[in-house]
Amino acid sequence: MEARRINIIVDAMGGDNAPDMIVAGACAAAEKFNVEITLVGKADMIEPLVTSDKCKVVHASEVIENSDVAIDSIKAKRDSSMVKGLIMLREGEGNAFVSAGNTGALISAATLFVHRLKGVKRVALAALIPTQKGKMMLMDAGANLVCKPEYITQFGVMGAIYIKKVFDVENPKVGLLNVGAEASKGTDTYRQAHEMLAESGVDFIGNVEAREFYSGVCDCLVADGFAGNIMLKSIEGTAQFMNWHLKRAMLKNAFAKLMAMGLKGSLKGMKKQMDYKSHGGAPMLGVAGNVIKAHGSSDSVAIFNAIGEAIKFAESGVNDEIVSHLAK
Amino acid sequence: MEARRINIIVDAMGGDNAPDMIVAGACAAAEKFNVEITLVGKADMIEPLVTSDKCKVVHASEVIENSDVAIDSIKAKRDSSMVKGLIMLREGEGNAFVSAGNTGALISAATLFVHRLKGVKRVALAALIPTQKGKMMLMDAGANLVCKPEYITQFGVMGAIYIKKVFDVENPKVGLLNVGAEASKGTDTYRQAHEMLAESGVDFIGNVEAREFYSGVCDCLVADGFAGNIMLKSIEGTAQFMNWHLKRAMLKNAFAKLMAMGLKGSLKGMKKQMDYKSHGGAPMLGVAGNVIKAHGSSDSVAIFNAIGEAIKFAESGVNDEIVSHLAK
Repeated sequence: MEARRINIIVDAMGGDNAPDMIVAGACAAAEKFNVEITLVGKADMIEPLVTSDKCKVVHASEVIENSDVAIDSIKAKRDSSMVKGLIMLREGEGNAFVSAGNTGALISAATLFVHRLKGVKRVALAALIPTQKGKMMLMDAGANLVCKPEYITQFGVMGAIYIKKVFDVENPKVGLLNVGAEASKGTDTYRQAHEMLAESGVDFIGNVEAREFYSGVCDCLVADGFAGNIMLKSIEGTAQFMNWHLKRAMLKNAFAKLMAMGLKGSLKGMKKQMDYKSHGGAPMLGVAGNVIKAHGSSDSVAIFNAIGEAIKFAESGVNDEIVSHLAK
Repeated sequence: MEARRINIIVDAMGGDNAPDMIVAGACAAAEKFNVEITLVGKADMIEPLVTSDKCKVVHASEVIENSDVAIDSIKAKRDSSMVKGLIMLREGEGNAFVSAGNTGALISAATLFVHRLKGVKRVALAALIPTQKGKMMLMDAGANLVCKPEYITQFGVMGAIYIKKVFDVENPKVGLLNVGAEASKGTDTYRQAHEMLAESGVDFIGNVEAREFYSGVCDCLVADGFAGNIMLKSIEGTAQFMNWHLKRAMLKNAFAKLMAMGLKGSLKGMKKQMDYKSHGGAPMLGVAGNVIKAHGSSDSVAIFNAIGEAIKFAESGVNDEIVSHLAK
């Protein structure tokens, strides 16, 4: 069977488990989803790992490391897998780009080399967070530390369109992260964003506190990137801390240890839901191209899932709808 | 035995479980710590609950509710237990004030009626968060949503002095909440706060991400009240969500249920550590008087602990040291 006319460009050198896990996940995705995949990176390292003839390799001699300073590295390393892949995306050589590499560099490089969608003021990074009803998208998770009210409002517009088109949610609800429920709460920026979101055409449910969203009250929670990043990392840290606590509790005595064995399966499910790796990836919205950021510690399954999301992103017309909504 | 010459003023009407649990905790504390306690609130409701002759009642006809708008209620309800208690504190009729009432109202009322310590720019609300090594104090937890760098720096100075004097930590370490470890991370405000904290005389360890503090890397984590509040509520929400998950996992089948029973004791310990009620209270620092905010859902044990902390706060000379440090 010939591959679909979809080509996903993958940064084969980005992430803690590159290139092995990235290439493995990409080859599996190419076969399963019947798409072409372009693996960008050091050809001599990647080629021996390729197991699907739907995957081709494009050589890039450099690698942006996690320890690299974002803006410096993307300027200095023009032949890196990340920069080269994004330029290919801009030139129409693929329908979407997936990277598990340096988040700061990806944000800078996507903005610098691919540019923003028409009408978009700031590119935002999304993050997926589990809730009692499924999952919620947090935006911005850290791309824009200081935001004007209109940026936050646009995050809500972009997020709602993505969730509707990619996650098939009929009427996505948008909430504004804040320190209290009343419209008067928060800083001037948040009060203005509250007003603007109410007029933006999204299904805006108002302010949502950082402890309330778990009930699944909204599909998209918007905030400036500083608050969003603090929230995301507080959640990650608390989940890890509670797992540490649980493990300690279980190892306290032989009886508890036995008990723990019986719970292991159930707990794995919980850990997985709290673990960002299992979601595969989250979009970078506002870029004039479909970019998915996979978690830095992605394994092959996470990359497989991220590529699946990238395909849906590319096929769903999210960006066209964002441009037409913002043009109104 | 005659009571020590310490008098703690308690807002008997504040909190979800007032006045019953407040009075019960206060009477137990009066006996255990051998101090005088002044219970402020509706005398006809409080008097029948008093079991210790070290507790006296001062009548206040009004109550500030949790649903009241902070600044309006403290102006309108001059004869409320909270306002009356704080004015008594200002007039030297007690050594400390404890309230489990409306947080916003308490911040406003403490600032308006008791005033700030000499040299203090903003009054901050602290919150205690468990770590792998014990506990950490987060400041500001929501009193000042927008902060200048010098406010954040003062939070670190005040927090370190409190932790040294009240928690008996020899050299408290202070961290700055931020989105990354490098000094260049964050907004202009945070970069400047980083510089100022390094010069402030506290043991400043630099930026700390919201997922890193659980290792116990610092005793006091400072931030503006918006970010601090988002962090605090993210932690609360995640702990609740994971407990919900765990319960569900345990109820999946009879075997898991049996296992769960064996773990119950250990899990209760974890839940307690993640539960802010068990810490009793946290100080409001920068007020020219010793104010402890107890959790809104405090039971008698939490109030007992909050009063214990208030006694230590009053006896330790924290505020004198804050004033003399800031005068340098």
